[in-house]
Parts: sequence; structure tokens; C-alpha cells
Amino acid sequence: MDSFECLACGPVDVRGSFSPFCPGCREPLFVSRPERSGRRAIRERAGSAIEKFLDFLPLSSFDPKLSLGEGDTPLLPLDRLGPKIGLSRAFAKNEAQNPTGSFKDRGTAVAVQKAVASGFKRIGTVSTGNMAASTAAYGARAGLETFVLLKEGTSAVALQASGIYGPHLITVDGDYGALFHKSLEVGGRLGISFMNSIDPFRMEGYKVTGYEIFLQLGRRAPRFILVPLSSGGHLLGLMRAFEDLEREGLIADFPTFVGVQALGCAPLVRAFEAGLPTYERLKEARTLAHAISNPAPPAGNTVLTMIRARAGRLVAVSDEEMLEAHQELAVNEGLCCQPESATTAAALKKLAGSGVIGPGDEAVIVLTGSGLKTPLASGPSPSRLHRMTLTDLDSQLFGLLRSKM
Amino acid sequence: MDSFECLACGPVDVRGSFSPFCPGCREPLFVSRPERSGRRAIRERAGSAIEKFLDFLPLSSFDPKLSLGEGDTPLLPLDRLGPKIGLSRAFAKNEAQNPTGSFKDRGTAVAVQKAVASGFKRIGTVSTGNMAASTAAYGARAGLETFVLLKEGTSAVALQASGIYGPHLITVDGDYGALFHKSLEVGGRLGISFMNSIDPFRMEGYKVTGYEIFLQLGRRAPRFILVPLSSGGHLLGLMRAFEDLEREGLIADFPTFVGVQALGCAPLVRAFEAGLPTYERLKEARTLAHAISNPAPPAGNTVLTMIRARAGRLVAVSDEEMLEAHQELAVNEGLCCQPESATTAAALKKLAGSGVIGPGDEAVIVLTGSGLKTPLASGPSPSRLHRMTLTDLDSQLFGLLRSKM
Repeated sequence: MDSFECLACGPVDVRGSFSPFCPGCREPLFVSRPERSGRRAIRERAGSAIEKFLDFLPLSSFDPKLSLGEGDTPLLPLDRLGPKIGLSRAFAKNEAQNPTGSFKDRGTAVAVQKAVASGFKRIGTVSTGNMAASTAAYGARAGLETFVLLKEGTSAVALQASGIYGPHLITVDGDYGALFHKSLEVGGRLGISFMNSIDPFRMEGYKVTGYEIFLQLGRRAPRFILVPLSSGGHLLGLMRAFEDLEREGLIADFPTFVGVQALGCAPLVRAFEAGLPTYERLKEARTLAHAISNPAPPAGNTVLTMIRARAGRLVAVSDEEMLEAHQELAVNEGLCCQPESATTAAALKKLAGSGVIGPGDEAVIVLTGSGLKTPLASGPSPSRLHRMTLTDLDSQLFGLLRSKM
Repeated sequence: MDSFECLACGPVDVRGSFSPFCPGCREPLFVSRPERSGRRAIRERAGSAIEKFLDFLPLSSFDPKLSLGEGDTPLLPLDRLGPKIGLSRAFAKNEAQNPTGSFKDRGTAVAVQKAVASGFKRIGTVSTGNMAASTAAYGARAGLETFVLLKEGTSAVALQASGIYGPHLITVDGDYGALFHKSLEVGGRLGISFMNSIDPFRMEGYKVTGYEIFLQLGRRAPRFILVPLSSGGHLLGLMRAFEDLEREGLIADFPTFVGVQALGCAPLVRAFEAGLPTYERLKEARTLAHAISNPAPPAGNTVLTMIRARAGRLVAVSDEEMLEAHQELAVNEGLCCQPESATTAAALKKLAGSGVIGPGDEAVIVLTGSGLKTPLASGPSPSRLHRMTLTDLDSQLFGLLRSKM
């Protein structure tokens, strides 16, 4: 039986409740680290990402039949973009190479392992985006009945991205934030394990990304880790991973975490900069960064607490900065991510420019999702688009090469 | 200096030529296996897929700066779909988890390593689909000037899929098949390394998929391997991999390879079934499977030779069978691939149904690309789409659950 804890209130008794929030302070719960005798082992030669770090996760075993091959994503040195913004040791952790094209798969994978081990036959989530597709895919893989709750008016494309896996797609009329809580309550009564954004087991899955970064850097923590910030679950999972590594005595210094929001929807950055302990829910969001546009992040206050306790930072970037960074990643590094993921590259540039990140500091940006998920608005630059004929290809290509000399 | 060989004519002297075809018989060339003293080593603990099998590839070293983290894709047991079609040991090799979402990245990665090692500053390809995006991404990563030659009238979406990486996009008026050959000739003169579909180094990259399947099955060859068949390069690369393993004495039995074409464009299946040594170029293609709709596969005759020599098979499936298999993979296994990739699942079902593949035979289908690349035409089934309200979510969900009992 797992135990849970709240950052502020400590261990919490959740018997009879299905809510991932502390009954005392309404902040998100984490799975408590079990007491152990002896060291936790990293099984570097295990066949799957989750198995490698099973000692660090609240799973007693790993069932490969429920897995889609999540994790083990590359950490790529940014040897062309880095120097252009004054950094010699910048890296990208490319989460787009997960089974459904986003980091969500890591959380879903662990939450589904847990749900099946706990006897659930039904799972669900509240999402219109990456998490919906991820949960529907893992639900199908596990043979579970899956319920995806979406906003009324969700586009046909977004419906089909998860609909292809055959879940129940349920559009719900009413406040989307309230639906988050209502789903957990209803799910508890109907035997549906709802794995929403800040589900404690989902956050356990995100820890694996942190452990992988540690291994990929040669058993070392980077100086900086930059992550897009929406509900807060991803960032908190990553921070918990490095806390685990610190407890095990595996890292000397804790990395500086940077959560990145879009300027048009940055409630946590506002509170952080104003020195407030809690954030104010926004009335409206004005940004193209839909995947991270969250006016009321459910783990927001815990993010503020954790970031301050660990000397991290919260940063906002404009849509223009995001789109520029998106293109720079593609043109310089061959990485086409979801535009929202490029907020980390924009923040990296900003912090390198202001001297917060020094030229030799090791910095990792987490690219959370695949560019294939978002149809791109703009076409190729006209200067790069040419028309030629087969007959004259030789002379026309030669002309193009000469024109650039 | 690499040597090349033709299946029919043996070693070929290519000095002064840039064509990947045999000057004698016009069939594609392969990189010759260099003579070696001693065993080739598999470096299972190497950090990247290519490095693991460097001894089997025509590369003297591997430059991580040119890599996007290609390969090391999962081999997933199909424990729900398999039994439904009468197979207890079916697997999917999910190539969608490559950097740009398709198997092409493996070929591009090796061809780019080779081009850079050979001093090229410019690369190119002739493609409107997966190969264009892959080549443009790796070109950007390597800092090379990249030329993508496309058919006149290519859609804006297809243009942008590779255009995002900043290559020269060149639409060419004239016969597309002729452009394939013309590009190699012009590229030779202008110093552009054109890595088209059956480039010998590209095929070397596809070998790595075969080695991975061998390792993932516990150092064993499966009984069957099913691959979509377009130019023929992918299938030939995979077959060469198992020939390598056979030469090293690592496998006892050679797998039965099954190349799968779409019924509406199946020139090789026609020739195979008619017992002809060469295929007849088709005048038109009638299929939704655009990514494998190739009326004149450049490696077609070599495919016929290799498949016959190795007791393989060529099979065609209809668009309906493909789309049905596409849905079955998603609903039963959580795998949403490019529809063309699902031709392998359709063929698996067909061959299991006719008894060619026995209930206990180990069979691997290669899913070549991500479903995110192809906008899906159809929406979710109406029986799976529900509308509810926040207030009555509880009773409405309960009603839904009860209605299915």
C-alpha cells in the first residue's frame, strides 16, 4: 500500500478518498518515498526505461504488456544552436520520441501499471491534448475501458487524435477547472481510475526523465534544467527525481530548475516575481501556446514553494520569442518540436543573454512534444522555394549555388 | 575507400561515377562487406544504435553531433491483436519513434555520417514525404546545405514538413522517375551528395533495424518479418542485416521476409506471382497508400531476385484491409501508425488466416512511420462520442456504464 504526502502538511491519510489533493491545504499529493534498507539500484542494462529505475518508483514489478516503449529518449548536444546564444554545453532532451509523441507517455505508463496492479478495469483523463491521446493509447494497449473527458467545442482533429484508440470521448458542458475535480470524485464512485495532470503516479513517471538525464550526462546533474510549465506536474516530477538522486548521495549539487510559461498566460511567473506565496487565477489567456496555457495550474502553489526552496526560477516568454526559438531549433539542430516546447529554448536564450546561465554552464532544455502534433501555420520562406525544370536542372541548380557565393 | 557490389554482376568499380546503380545491369549497388579478421563485435552497451553495430557498417567512426538519436526503437509484443488473428508470438517494431517519425532516419543518419566523413558540404534527396523531412532535419543538424527536390504541385503541408528545417525546396517540372536519376548525375557534378531511396549507405542504415530485432528477441531471428514495400531499399537493407548475422554464425535460420504492397500499386507482387524475373512499370496507381505507391520501384528487380533466393514472399493488400488493420492496431495495441505501415498488419492477418504463418510462429511487422504524419480522414465512431454536463456527470456516466452491461 502506497503512502502519500503533502509538501506543507507531511504524510496524509487518504483512505476512503480518491483525490490527489491534500485534505488539509488542497495542494497536490506526492507518493511518499518508502523507507528502505540499503541503496536503491539503477539497472542500467534493463530492457525498458521504467525497469531501469524500478527501485525509485512505487511499482513492485513492471508488466511489458502494458508498455509502449516509453522513455529512453535522446539527450542531444546543441552544438550549433548553443554557441550561437553563447553556450558551449547546452542539451535538448527530446521527449517527442515517446510512443504518442509527448512526455505524457511516461506518466501514463506508470499510472497504468499502477491502475492494473490495483485491479482497475477502467481509466480516464480530463484533457483535450497530448494527455488525452496518451491515456487513450495506453488504455487500448492494456485492454482497459477508457474515458476521455473534453471541453465542449473541442476540434474534430483533437477528438480524432485520441478517438483513434477507441476510448469513450465525452464532451462536457461546464467549467473545465471544476471538471478536473469532479472527474476524480465521480471516478472514485464508478471505479474509473482518473489519471489527470497532477496525478501522483503520473508525476512518478516524469521522475524517470530526470534519472535518464543524470545517466546520460555521465552520472551528474546539469547546472540548469528548463521545462515548460502548465499544470506543474512535469516540473515537480523532475524536481522529485533530483531530490531522490540527492538522497541517494548520487549528485553533489542540485540543478537550478527553470519553469517556463507563455507571457500571455503566466500566473505563476507573476506570483513568483511579486514574491507572493500563492498565485492568482487568471481570467483569460492570450497566447498561441495552447498546450501550456493554464490560467489555474492545479499544482501552481506547490511549484512556487518548491522553486523557491530550491533556488529555481520561473520565466515567461512571448509568442514571438517562442516561434523564433522554434524555428532556430529546427534550422540549427534538425529538431521540430511542438511550439510550446520551444519556450524552453527561448528562455535559454534569454537567461544566457542576461548572464544568469554562464557560457560554460551545462543546461538541459526538455522538449516535451512532437512538432508533428501541431500543423504549422506558416509556409517555407520564399527565398528557399525554387521552381526548376528537369531539362535545365543542371544549369538552374548551378545558378542557385553561384548566386549564394 | 568503400567497395560496391551488384547482386548479379558481383564487385563493381564505381570510380568516377556517382550512380548507385550497376553500370552493367542497372540494378542497385550494395556496399561490399569488407574482409575482416576475427568476429564482428556487437557493442550492446554503446550509447547509440549506430555505435552498437559499427563493426557491421561502412563507417570508421560515429559522430554524435550528426545524430538525432535514431534507432533503438521498441519491439512490442502484440498480445491482444495477435491472439485475435490466431498468433501467439506476433511483434511490432515501431519505427515511428525515430526522430522525424519514420524509419527513413536510420538511412539518413548513416548516409549523413558518410557524406560528412567524405567531405561533402551539401546533401540532397528526391522525395515529397518522409525522406524529404528526414534528410532536411539531418542536413540542418549537420550544418549542411540541403536540397530537397519535389514534384511540381506538392501540397503546402508536405512542403512545410521538410521546409521547417530550412533546406532549399525545389519543385521540378518533369517526369519524377527521371528526376531520381538526373539528381544523381547533377549532384555528382555540383558536389551535392544525393541520398535517394536506394542509396547504398541509406540501405546500410536500415540494416540496424534488423540487428535490433535480433537482439530484442534474445539473439534470435524471427520466423517471419513483414515490411511495406515501396522503392525496395528498406526490405533489402533488412535482408542484408540477416545475411550479415548468418555469415557471423549468429542465427541458425534465415527469416522469411514478406514485402507488402498496396493492391492498387503492386508491380512487384504481379511479377512475383507471375513468376517473371523483372517487373513491368505501372501506368497508374490507385491507392490511398501514397507513401508506398511506387509504380516503378528502383530496386524492384533486385527485390524479386532476393525474395526468391531466400524463399520470401510478396503480398498485396487492399486499401480497405489496410484501413481496417490500422484501426485494429490502434484499438487493440495503442499503436497509431501511418496507414501505409498498417499494410504489414493486414498482410499478417491474411497469412495467418491462410495458414502460411502458423499459430506459434514468431512474426515481426515493421511499422515504418507515425500516424501523426497523416491527418486522419474519418472521425471517431458516433457510438463512442457522448455529450454530458458537469452537473449531471455522475448520473450520465453511470447510465453509460449500465447501458453496456
